[in-house]
Amino acid sequence: MDNCIFCKIVNGEIPSKKVYEDDSVAAFYDIEPQAPVHVLIIPKAHFASTLDLGADTAQVVGNMVLAANKIAKELGVDESGFRLVMNMGRDAGQTVPHLHMHLMGGRSFSWPAG
Amino acid sequence: MDNCIFCKIVNGEIPSKKVYEDDSVAAFYDIEPQAPVHVLIIPKAHFASTLDLGADTAQVVGNMVLAANKIAKELGVDESGFRLVMNMGRDAGQTVPHLHMHLMGGRSFSWPAG
Repeated sequence: MDNCIFCKIVNGEIPSKKVYEDDSVAAFYDIEPQAPVHVLIIPKAHFASTLDLGADTAQVVGNMVLAANKIAKELGVDESGFRLVMNMGRDAGQTVPHLHMHLMGGRSFSWPAG
Repeated sequence: MDNCIFCKIVNGEIPSKKVYEDDSVAAFYDIEPQAPVHVLIIPKAHFASTLDLGADTAQVVGNMVLAANKIAKELGVDESGFRLVMNMGRDAGQTVPHLHMHLMGGRSFSWPAG
């Protein structure tokens, strides 16, 4: 997607503080962190949201979660706990229309989640 | 898992208000809803959290997300937006040690997510 900021991060056109990368997934620090650990995990392929996934592509969310596990361990929040959040559309406050999963840890999180 | 409340819901030993079911996933209304739409989506197989998933089992999260898409459409929040949340461990306030995804919609959600 030509004007997608996350596609540009994947392509290296926009710099990011990379945390993790594999064939299908990239992860980098959120530029407006809301917790001591706040990483965004995205599919390298462009999907606007989960609603764009189908039976043939939904596996990428499994890959995102496996990446989240690795990152949580790497950054030392696997035992203390972490929250994974995906926002879809207006009511959820999705700001970038490229599917992304927030990994947040390093503090206690209240309920409900927003 | 003998004493897992969500396994008992899957087995029908504990009643729930079912929203969706397929071979690998079940979904039911949260008994303490935090939004007009608040559904829990779980794998039928027992995993304590994402940390128990591996390359051979992570696909179930893709199935959970495909279920979330269907439920969001069914309950009319696909266009207005919805938030998907998975809590792992103490800091995130995970209350049931069986992996579950909260689907919340029908109102605006603040940021950060808790």
